[in-house]
Amino acid sequence: MRNLFDIDNWKIIEKSFDPTKQKQAESIFSIGNGSFGQRANFEEKYSGDTLQGSYVGGVYYPDKTRVGWWKNGYPEYFAKVLNACNWIGINIEIDGIALDLSTCEVSSFYRELDMFRGTLTRKFKAKFSNGKEIEVCSLRFCSMHREEVAAISYSVTPLNFSGNVKFTPYLDGKVSNHDSNYNEFFWEEDSRKVDNKKGVVCAKTKKTNFAVATAMRYSFWREGELLDIHPNIAQQEFYVENNFEHYLEKGVKFTLKKYVSIVSTLNHSEFSIIPRAINQVRDAYIAGFDALLAEHESAWSEIWKNADIQIEGDTAAQQGIRFNIFQLYQTYTGKNAKLNIGPKGFTGEKYGGATYWDTEAYCLPFYLKTASPEISKQLLIYRYNHLEKAIENAAKLGFIDGAALYPMVTMNGEECHNEWEITFEEIHRNGAIAFGIYNYVRHTGDVAYLAQYGRPVLVGIARFWAQRFNWSESKKAYVMLGVTGPNEYENNVNNNWYTNYLAKWCIQYALEVDTQIRQESKSVLTAGEEEKWQHIIDNVYFPKLEGTNIYLQQDGFMDKEQLSASDIPENQRPINQHWSWDRILRSIFIKQADVLQGLYLFEDHFDSETLRENFDFYEPKTVHESSLSPCVHVILAAKIGNMDKAYELYLRTSRLDLDDYNHEADEGLHITSMAGTWMSVVEGMAGVRIHENGLSIDPKIPAAWKSYKFQILYKNNPIAIAVTQSEIKIKNLGEFSLEMSVLGAEITLNATEERTINLTTLTV
Amino acid sequence: MRNLFDIDNWKIIEKSFDPTKQKQAESIFSIGNGSFGQRANFEEKYSGDTLQGSYVGGVYYPDKTRVGWWKNGYPEYFAKVLNACNWIGINIEIDGIALDLSTCEVSSFYRELDMFRGTLTRKFKAKFSNGKEIEVCSLRFCSMHREEVAAISYSVTPLNFSGNVKFTPYLDGKVSNHDSNYNEFFWEEDSRKVDNKKGVVCAKTKKTNFAVATAMRYSFWREGELLDIHPNIAQQEFYVENNFEHYLEKGVKFTLKKYVSIVSTLNHSEFSIIPRAINQVRDAYIAGFDALLAEHESAWSEIWKNADIQIEGDTAAQQGIRFNIFQLYQTYTGKNAKLNIGPKGFTGEKYGGATYWDTEAYCLPFYLKTASPEISKQLLIYRYNHLEKAIENAAKLGFIDGAALYPMVTMNGEECHNEWEITFEEIHRNGAIAFGIYNYVRHTGDVAYLAQYGRPVLVGIARFWAQRFNWSESKKAYVMLGVTGPNEYENNVNNNWYTNYLAKWCIQYALEVDTQIRQESKSVLTAGEEEKWQHIIDNVYFPKLEGTNIYLQQDGFMDKEQLSASDIPENQRPINQHWSWDRILRSIFIKQADVLQGLYLFEDHFDSETLRENFDFYEPKTVHESSLSPCVHVILAAKIGNMDKAYELYLRTSRLDLDDYNHEADEGLHITSMAGTWMSVVEGMAGVRIHENGLSIDPKIPAAWKSYKFQILYKNNPIAIAVTQSEIKIKNLGEFSLEMSVLGAEITLNATEERTINLTTLTV
Repeated sequence: MRNLFDIDNWKIIEKSFDPTKQKQAESIFSIGNGSFGQRANFEEKYSGDTLQGSYVGGVYYPDKTRVGWWKNGYPEYFAKVLNACNWIGINIEIDGIALDLSTCEVSSFYRELDMFRGTLTRKFKAKFSNGKEIEVCSLRFCSMHREEVAAISYSVTPLNFSGNVKFTPYLDGKVSNHDSNYNEFFWEEDSRKVDNKKGVVCAKTKKTNFAVATAMRYSFWREGELLDIHPNIAQQEFYVENNFEHYLEKGVKFTLKKYVSIVSTLNHSEFSIIPRAINQVRDAYIAGFDALLAEHESAWSEIWKNADIQIEGDTAAQQGIRFNIFQLYQTYTGKNAKLNIGPKGFTGEKYGGATYWDTEAYCLPFYLKTASPEISKQLLIYRYNHLEKAIENAAKLGFIDGAALYPMVTMNGEECHNEWEITFEEIHRNGAIAFGIYNYVRHTGDVAYLAQYGRPVLVGIARFWAQRFNWSESKKAYVMLGVTGPNEYENNVNNNWYTNYLAKWCIQYALEVDTQIRQESKSVLTAGEEEKWQHIIDNVYFPKLEGTNIYLQQDGFMDKEQLSASDIPENQRPINQHWSWDRILRSIFIKQADVLQGLYLFEDHFDSETLRENFDFYEPKTVHESSLSPCVHVILAAKIGNMDKAYELYLRTSRLDLDDYNHEADEGLHITSMAGTWMSVVEGMAGVRIHENGLSIDPKIPAAWKSYKFQILYKNNPIAIAVTQSEIKIKNLGEFSLEMSVLGAEITLNATEERTINLTTLTV
Repeated sequence: MRNLFDIDNWKIIEKSFDPTKQKQAESIFSIGNGSFGQRANFEEKYSGDTLQGSYVGGVYYPDKTRVGWWKNGYPEYFAKVLNACNWIGINIEIDGIALDLSTCEVSSFYRELDMFRGTLTRKFKAKFSNGKEIEVCSLRFCSMHREEVAAISYSVTPLNFSGNVKFTPYLDGKVSNHDSNYNEFFWEEDSRKVDNKKGVVCAKTKKTNFAVATAMRYSFWREGELLDIHPNIAQQEFYVENNFEHYLEKGVKFTLKKYVSIVSTLNHSEFSIIPRAINQVRDAYIAGFDALLAEHESAWSEIWKNADIQIEGDTAAQQGIRFNIFQLYQTYTGKNAKLNIGPKGFTGEKYGGATYWDTEAYCLPFYLKTASPEISKQLLIYRYNHLEKAIENAAKLGFIDGAALYPMVTMNGEECHNEWEITFEEIHRNGAIAFGIYNYVRHTGDVAYLAQYGRPVLVGIARFWAQRFNWSESKKAYVMLGVTGPNEYENNVNNNWYTNYLAKWCIQYALEVDTQIRQESKSVLTAGEEEKWQHIIDNVYFPKLEGTNIYLQQDGFMDKEQLSASDIPENQRPINQHWSWDRILRSIFIKQADVLQGLYLFEDHFDSETLRENFDFYEPKTVHESSLSPCVHVILAAKIGNMDKAYELYLRTSRLDLDDYNHEADEGLHITSMAGTWMSVVEGMAGVRIHENGLSIDPKIPAAWKSYKFQILYKNNPIAIAVTQSEIKIKNLGEFSLEMSVLGAEITLNATEERTINLTTLTV
């Protein structure tokens, strides 16, 4: 795999302009701050191939679904993340000719995403058709400190002339989604205003009536000197601009600083958003670009302090893991319980929606170990707030008595995925949400959460499962018919082992939690419910391969032609690009961890031999065509000591987008799977586990790495872990003494204490 | 169930104008001639709620599919039957006010579909807002004799005034499909011409480039006197008209006779269609309305001679069965191997496409027994002509070496259904096509067909099945995974008994046919293919309920909650309108005959006890929410002597549209299931069977009927069968002596001989 861009520990660097890579670069160099985000589109006009993308968290449009034959229970809409007002726009014109990298002669092009600082920088020389050449240098960021503010510094230096240059900072809300199902336009104009200092465009989504006010203000500088500008103003529907011509002297740098604020009715009343946006750009203008940048960088450095993973001896792996961490924090910062983590974050439109089971299964463990528990709690509260909708969702399908089915894809708690085999059947997602609560509690020790928020969600979910199982007279056991497991290369199967296992666990956990809380507040279960649940718990059917410890993915799995992924010719991979859906469905090949996903979640329930046997059975059949798959296999491979396999699969996940393995980075990045990459290191290589009864660490290190180190939070105590080929260092950075198991030995680490363990001799 | 319209032996009659029933009436009073068809829209302007529909056989548009997530192998388009040029239009205006039944005061309204003559008549009085009242009488038909010609006689009589009335016969090609997926317009204008005698509009479909020329000519009469008219002409895009005002005397009938011809490039070159349409309207004009009508009626009377079923003592049943026969012959006459039988015929747009497995499974047996073998042969040739496409279709899914998969829905042989669970999995359709060949041969004795056309189709289909089965190491048998049986309330099941049985039979039959023909022309099988096929034939797995003769619909069927349709509250029926798709899929309820469909097709392979046991097991679980279901159950119920059940289900099928059981007649009629109704009588009540080794008749009669009689064709010999409560009369109307089994007794009927069997004593 050729690297798309240059390798560097902290930066993504592009050293020449290649229009054929522009859409990939636009995704990879995206910036965001958890509230909004922006693809790395150019500020100035660009007539080449591009995917313009500016997204505002939580603002969506319910696009009419597209199905062949609508059936009862199908959702009526698919929520689309909205391409919103273009706020980066700064057009440059000389003698009536636009600066446009598609038509000008470009040299010395340099683009850099600095992940440590959270900035996007671009520098290039452009020669116009009339021979005039300028150098442009831009830097922009979405403030991690002020969540509704962004700023751009855009400098122009004439290289071979002195003369007039026209600057046009603008806002353009007339943008449409590429993935609109029926080519509809999703916005309508609310209002716009512009004077010679500032402008604002306020647009409203059709149907959902979200209003978003985008305001701009600017200053113009000759080197360090602020100039007084008297611009023209212009406007049209959804659009405002200031424009002015200024005489630029050869060799002197002139800089336009554009301050932007994006405020939506997700967080504020409709009356307040325009004044708020105007106030924020005024405040930003007053603070000045450098101060804004400094506070932004400082916010990033706080994040890195807890979340960074340092890998020595493998710069590509180092860049890869940091890119993943960086993108996750750009997408979600945990400040707002109305927000969640979309599969493409703010880097593209694809997949619509904001929330998948990815959040609980992959992202939550990342935030639990790298950020304050409050951040993870927001993710849980998000689902708590959607409980009523989950109950409605289940009721639409015919479930009763408060059974809750969380949606496969959602923005506001309503289901909006529209394939029955997913919407109605990929219900294991419901279990991931319950497991998220369990996982949160064992990481944070916040048992109070259970009484206040956890129990109603757990009980609703358990009620769903209790109804979804049915008694099979022929098997004399509870079965679950017609489900789709995590392996979406199977649909509508019976007794998916993962789903059955998870569902049983959910009922059991809900019962435990209810029982536990009964001491303080009485049970919420109805008469007979406990007995009914207990009967299910005791009698669930699990498909198993006779004479082995292998759990079968579903009924009939052994009827398939038994092949290995290595039987597939290389030119037919990935099979989802080469095989018909029919052939894929009938094949034995597994898109992503399914039984192994269950063994990963419930590792403590199984002995090592069972893990190994199942891994050896399923890994050869798994084609890993979901970005969410390899990480689980890395973790299990490391667990059973298969470090070669672990490292091979780690490579596959860590630079997925950076090297564009799947040829789809142009559409946006795989944000949620990035958390899986982080898990590959922390849970995989380092063998970190938070069990119900404590922390354990069982580190290994790939042969290719010199060392790696990172921190985790456990019950809000920071712990630093460093692993080399010969030793492990574990340091308690917190204020309390901690007990933990390291390589099987129980140790106690006092506050600030560091312990070194020799990996060869296993001596401390 | 209230009857929508009046009951009559030969007619459908509506005696008052009810705008709320207009769309249902438009469907039910539809007329057609196998080449084109027309809903019973009004000739004059109608501003009320209406579904305009004029359809030309074989002319379609490949509408872009609507799917949530497109996957490899999905068809790119869904062929839509096209709403084509409005040819019936005759506007009437008095003093600038349009005749419009939605705004005029209507009295003495009478509408009649005369099924014996094949005519649609309408008579009414209309009072205009200015107090002027006229009587209108219209009669129209689509000629069964000239397949590209239609004619309308439209009379106006002033009732309370003498004065000018404006007549505007026109053609309007600017029509759009209601079911367009993306609101696209499917036609573009080719050309139009109009002079004072005639007009033509030629329109072309986008993408498919079908051109359709529609021409009109008219004459105008005062009572029996032809008047000389000098009309104005007008035209605009897709539209031509003649218009003239004429002074009408009170009480005198003036008649506009409009002759129309519709010619498409399905059958003629693009250069010839306009002249051909013009020539045909000229010829029709010269022949005159009465002569055209007479030849049309004579063609219908020929059809009725062979196809009629007479039921005494139950006028509703009589009307119902004739309506079904009438609609079938309006839809398909067998003159053109490019045409087939769409599920809505020419009565609506819904379901698009023209050809489903309905054709072979339901319609073919009807045409085999009521029309010359040449007609049925056209249906077989249609599939023969699509063999290459069927091989391509299978190849797209990954099948090789000439395996053929016929499409679920098609116009030109290409698959255009777009739900994977149907498109890729409801593959039993492939078997229906093979069975159609077998059925044709046993009805007609035309074994020569096998060598020339049958074998390649059978071998292609057998190759598909041989690849679609896979060896299960765990079952030590061939299994078929991931199919959808006829019961579409299950999707993606393993080892659907019906599909496995049919597939095995297909392979066996293809082998037999190839072996049989080897004597004349050598085998087309490849090396080892016969052995491979034989190994499959000998080792197919069939799910069965242990200790019984019950064949299980699929693997895992007994894991379902075992309920009866009678457990469903009446207000939740039909379940497809009340339950979520999720709930339906997981329930035990069966949409349409599945295992029973197989027992019906292969009745000779099973003993009576097995038929009875399976019927008793499945019938209570079947909700008959497909129009194709009850007929199969009628036939089996009659076979096992359960006449009450047979009659109950017969009622459900025979007046399905006439009484609009499913509240959807407004969208069009259930044309293909009408053949099933016919089968209910002939194969069900009368127990007629064409076995491989001959004809058998085992009649029964419902208590509610006095008698019923009909004819069938067997090896091109007409046989008349009449059944009363006490006796059966069988008459050989042909020229050859025939052997047959009647009530289990072998008899020989000489040419023209009639035999009477006393039903009580079973004596002849």
